[in-house]
Amino acid sequence: MKNVFGNSITITLFGESHGAEIGAVLDGFAPGIPVDEDYIAKKLSQRRPAGKISTARVEADRFRIVSGVFNGRTTGTPICILIPNENTKSRDYAGTRFLARPGHADYTAFCKYHGNEDYRGGGHFSGRITAALVAAGALALSVLERKGILIGTHIAKCAGIADRGFAAVGEALRADLKALEDSSFAVLDPEAAAEMRAAIEQAASEGDSVGGVLETAVTGLPAGIGEPWFDSLESVLSHALFSIPAVKGVEFGDGFALADLRGSAANDSFRIREGKTVTATNHNGGINGGISNGMPVVFRCAVKPTPSIFKEQDTVDFSAGTEAKLVLKGRHDPAIVHRARVVADSVCALVLCDMLALRYGTDYLGT
Amino acid sequence: MKNVFGNSITITLFGESHGAEIGAVLDGFAPGIPVDEDYIAKKLSQRRPAGKISTARVEADRFRIVSGVFNGRTTGTPICILIPNENTKSRDYAGTRFLARPGHADYTAFCKYHGNEDYRGGGHFSGRITAALVAAGALALSVLERKGILIGTHIAKCAGIADRGFAAVGEALRADLKALEDSSFAVLDPEAAAEMRAAIEQAASEGDSVGGVLETAVTGLPAGIGEPWFDSLESVLSHALFSIPAVKGVEFGDGFALADLRGSAANDSFRIREGKTVTATNHNGGINGGISNGMPVVFRCAVKPTPSIFKEQDTVDFSAGTEAKLVLKGRHDPAIVHRARVVADSVCALVLCDMLALRYGTDYLGT
Amino acid sequence: MKNVFGNSITITLFGESHGAEIGAVLDGFAPGIPVDEDYIAKKLSQRRPAGKISTARVEADRFRIVSGVFNGRTTGTPICILIPNENTKSRDYAGTRFLARPGHADYTAFCKYHGNEDYRGGGHFSGRITAALVAAGALALSVLERKGILIGTHIAKCAGIADRGFAAVGEALRADLKALEDSSFAVLDPEAAAEMRAAIEQAASEGDSVGGVLETAVTGLPAGIGEPWFDSLESVLSHALFSIPAVKGVEFGDGFALADLRGSAANDSFRIREGKTVTATNHNGGINGGISNGMPVVFRCAVKPTPSIFKEQDTVDFSAGTEAKLVLKGRHDPAIVHRARVVADSVCALVLCDMLALRYGTDYLGT
Amino acid sequence: MKNVFGNSITITLFGESHGAEIGAVLDGFAPGIPVDEDYIAKKLSQRRPAGKISTARVEADRFRIVSGVFNGRTTGTPICILIPNENTKSRDYAGTRFLARPGHADYTAFCKYHGNEDYRGGGHFSGRITAALVAAGALALSVLERKGILIGTHIAKCAGIADRGFAAVGEALRADLKALEDSSFAVLDPEAAAEMRAAIEQAASEGDSVGGVLETAVTGLPAGIGEPWFDSLESVLSHALFSIPAVKGVEFGDGFALADLRGSAANDSFRIREGKTVTATNHNGGINGGISNGMPVVFRCAVKPTPSIFKEQDTVDFSAGTEAKLVLKGRHDPAIVHRARVVADSVCALVLCDMLALRYGTDYLGT
Repeated sequence: MKNVFGNSITITLFGESHGAEIGAVLDGFAPGIPVDEDYIAKKLSQRRPAGKISTARVEADRFRIVSGVFNGRTTGTPICILIPNENTKSRDYAGTRFLARPGHADYTAFCKYHGNEDYRGGGHFSGRITAALVAAGALALSVLERKGILIGTHIAKCAGIADRGFAAVGEALRADLKALEDSSFAVLDPEAAAEMRAAIEQAASEGDSVGGVLETAVTGLPAGIGEPWFDSLESVLSHALFSIPAVKGVEFGDGFALADLRGSAANDSFRIREGKTVTATNHNGGINGGISNGMPVVFRCAVKPTPSIFKEQDTVDFSAGTEAKLVLKGRHDPAIVHRARVVADSVCALVLCDMLALRYGTDYLGT
Repeated sequence: MKNVFGNSITITLFGESHGAEIGAVLDGFAPGIPVDEDYIAKKLSQRRPAGKISTARVEADRFRIVSGVFNGRTTGTPICILIPNENTKSRDYAGTRFLARPGHADYTAFCKYHGNEDYRGGGHFSGRITAALVAAGALALSVLERKGILIGTHIAKCAGIADRGFAAVGEALRADLKALEDSSFAVLDPEAAAEMRAAIEQAASEGDSVGGVLETAVTGLPAGIGEPWFDSLESVLSHALFSIPAVKGVEFGDGFALADLRGSAANDSFRIREGKTVTATNHNGGINGGISNGMPVVFRCAVKPTPSIFKEQDTVDFSAGTEAKLVLKGRHDPAIVHRARVVADSVCALVLCDMLALRYGTDYLGT
Repeated sequence: MKNVFGNSITITLFGESHGAEIGAVLDGFAPGIPVDEDYIAKKLSQRRPAGKISTARVEADRFRIVSGVFNGRTTGTPICILIPNENTKSRDYAGTRFLARPGHADYTAFCKYHGNEDYRGGGHFSGRITAALVAAGALALSVLERKGILIGTHIAKCAGIADRGFAAVGEALRADLKALEDSSFAVLDPEAAAEMRAAIEQAASEGDSVGGVLETAVTGLPAGIGEPWFDSLESVLSHALFSIPAVKGVEFGDGFALADLRGSAANDSFRIREGKTVTATNHNGGINGGISNGMPVVFRCAVKPTPSIFKEQDTVDFSAGTEAKLVLKGRHDPAIVHRARVVADSVCALVLCDMLALRYGTDYLGT
Repeated sequence: MKNVFGNSITITLFGESHGAEIGAVLDGFAPGIPVDEDYIAKKLSQRRPAGKISTARVEADRFRIVSGVFNGRTTGTPICILIPNENTKSRDYAGTRFLARPGHADYTAFCKYHGNEDYRGGGHFSGRITAALVAAGALALSVLERKGILIGTHIAKCAGIADRGFAAVGEALRADLKALEDSSFAVLDPEAAAEMRAAIEQAASEGDSVGGVLETAVTGLPAGIGEPWFDSLESVLSHALFSIPAVKGVEFGDGFALADLRGSAANDSFRIREGKTVTATNHNGGINGGISNGMPVVFRCAVKPTPSIFKEQDTVDFSAGTEAKLVLKGRHDPAIVHRARVVADSVCALVLCDMLALRYGTDYLGT
């Protein structure tokens, strides 16, 4: 279904990097939910470019909610959020119209759309569109928080530099998540943060870019959420996470590291703590058989280095069918991992709202 | 949508480990496709337990196609494939009804289904159900092969032992895929294969289990398949792959390793070879912007060690809400990675058929 | 999505008239619902052919539930119901393989499936497949009845002979619905019933067939069910009702008669009765703006006369592209309106279960 | 899925009568289709109020396409069309906030949305939203016309006055459809048109309203479009048609009149004409077994009289739970049948585009 995602709650995404407006329509969201525009603005600010480690294209993200909200609350009908593109320099792209930027969607979009695609700034494939995801995701995040479900993402690794891990459970984990909420560069260990920033700047100074790993934790999700087989929590979350540009890997719990463990080491024993069933460890990332077990849901996304670099690259002119050299102009990010973290939070929140609504009904989130 | 997956072509999955029949309904499959029951049987044999490295529960998988096939060809109407469960020993499970097997879905199923779940042998969450996926997947694989699209999966790693990688492209890759087709233990390097088997047997002798990594390659897929955003090729493939029990990670191309590279190293330069646009490397696994670029599609799945082990484990009785010790009976696999590889092939094939049908129409696969 | 229908609860339908088995998979149905096989059998008996006014092909409908039910209750996982075809005479169809039976799907199926369709007895287009709908619908009907929601359908008209209308509301309507439950020929007025039977027999004796109108009432449905725009209660119900073979018209409330009224006559005034908001009349069939208003939901389906008649008809041989004469053999119904009423009940129940589950959550129906 | 409709091509609808903007997102539409904004404007003008027989609220419908169109052609990515609401008088509604207008969605929306709904001018339930459907439908209509598929709707009946019927087939039918294209009041017989107008004006002068029947014909649709069972052409068309506010009945071909015919009269005999298979009559409205047979597709929608009337009505205050009298203010249509005809054309075109794209692939419509 392409640009529509979800079952009980759906999100429809539209827009191009240099078009008039980008936006999202959120349908099935419960009536009566307070809409805090400041909170949406805050979430948008978390993905806004920040100084030397980001692109110089800074958008004000002056979003407008044009439907589905009345007197400060959701009505229960579709919510359309629009964000204008205000700071575009389309001329930067005219000269390289048919030169495939390596690692980008230029060539594949040409194959799919036969040359009708809006190529300016990556068009519909631009990370710009994630601003609309974030705006919609902010609504989902605020609803979940009212239900006691917190979501947060930190940069677990950037340019090869590792952050410390999340606290495993409980108040310590909630404190980590709260700290990220107010962080402009979502790293738990300040020293690691400084090293990462330096590494990004270094790459930028060389006309190059770096990647990283985002780690997300969800606390407060009740046990029993998710479906067997095709709509396992992992299936639906990964579906949404791989929609984020540059994500090339997703793993839950210990993920790929589990492949090297024995069952006796990988299994999470069950315990009773304060009258509640918990697991002693969380190698499985809070999910058994595709369904939440009440422990924190933990997953990681591999984010490849931004493909836009300023070094000369070999490529082809896909209109002429000839080889060519490419030197990029324009404004580009030397890393996007720090901007993508709120996108991970957002799609995670949208998925969880949908799955909660499936199980508990579409009114549930508004109560 | 839980047990239904796909858009133009849908698969519906049903059944329990110890129920009367498991099965799948494949809808939207083009008319006129020859149905080779021997080929389906061969694919089912690839997931059948094999000697010491597998469970002692061996099912004959006497499948029956009860609709949608007439005179040896698909009719274009829904194809229902049934597979009876013939070799069940439900008594093995009666004594441990409310003891949550660590790493399994027992506890989460209880939370979701309030105790109404069929708990015998894992019920609906059992890997047994993948037999139906494989039977349906065999139809998809055979159709793709007629279109020149080959899919194959090898055990890239098991118990920490690595296989050699796939040949990068062309005839060498096709040869690798063909070799896997006739292999009962899908490893490219015979020495690695022997070591893996020994390691599985060793774990089994200790009442333990091992995991591994499956690597899949697709060759012959045209450029331009996949959709932007929510139905990116990575999104839809991962959705299906995470439906396979025990898969806890999915990565495309270099996946998590990309996170540590610079953009200049991660980008795949374009070239013209024999008049065709190709990339010089394939770090992105044949996918740019969520759409195939004509290079081999390559991905890896992390398969956790089988949670069924014979060592005593700490757990809880989730009916009584008390802690307990668990010693499993029954017949279990010390590894499933070798049985799961054809499941990976199958869900990959189902996804590609669906996406080809979306783009080229539902008749396309029959022509 | 062709043979899959529904959102929170989906039904997947498969099978052919002369294939091995027909069946349905019901997914998303709440856990813990008692399954009464006698009730399913009773519902199947309501669509079984009955004497002179029906076909001589009588199937025992020995259904088997092969998944999703355990210890007499639904597990919450997909329920597959199989019904074997036992009484088939495929030879009746061999001689007329390429002669399009007027009013049937032979020619259109050929256009769609390029000759691969199973043509015997109408194949996948046969009314036979509705047996699977009825079996699945029986589960839905029994669940709704436990929630106080009753559904019943009478033959409002057959061969031009009209039954009396339903009682408008309350106990009188419930009594009408209860009476239909135990009726083998669902007509409220016994005299009209006798006339209709005579008219069907008369048509049969002339080798001809008759049609009719089915009227369905639903009582006990709470206000607030249905969605605006595309999933209005009328939209989704009509979608399902037009899936029933031979249905060519659907109207809600006064339906087409409303077109001739003035607004002042068509509007249903609101009143308070026993502290509850009701309408004084029910011209709108219990639905305003696509959403239930708490009054009985009332709709009618036009059922065309069975296209299988024994008179010689003009037709074409669509393989040869020549004109031809057709004289049918085989066993056919001179009317299906009396057999179709339980199919209308069934699809209505499936739709309502889905919409209730969407609003109140998938667990709701099991509580 | 509420406000999203379609499979290969989806439309998402949003907005409220007195909100900032209404709109639609069209996803899956093929790349390369010329977009003629004048044609969209023309279609919007067909639903614009017209003098005495319509409401005094006239909107300029200054639509903006903010995504998915580049250099005058579709890009293949989602097309978002926005239409601002410019002429709103929300004060008209403040005093009657909790008085349920009979025949409207006020009370049911309150039951569904718990009072959070935007009540002004009917909010999300307003016919105003159909402007977005028409704008999106214009794209679909123009694409179909390029494929030789013409769609047109006339007012078959209004206030009890009947128009003449469509020409049955061929050039005469195409001429009828072309004539409707340029008609501001879509009636084939000028005398009937004048009578209908007079009847509407008469009802308006009495503070009352009238309804009618819309009849739509589609010519040029190839045989073989539609799916068996749940996505029969009738099912999907009716689903979309019942989404149009005030539609209370839908029938195909002779529809309800078929119920009174015998099979020998209702069946459409096949013939060969100019080498092509046709039917001698078209009682079945071009559809057999849910699939198009190549003859004109013909259906009718019953449109109830506008529920907004100026006569005093009995109602309830659904907040207080008391009975009340209602005298409407504001600007209302004494009939909407003449404005709704282009909405019927639009949803029909959207459905056909989706079903053609399913069968022939998403690129098909752009070629």
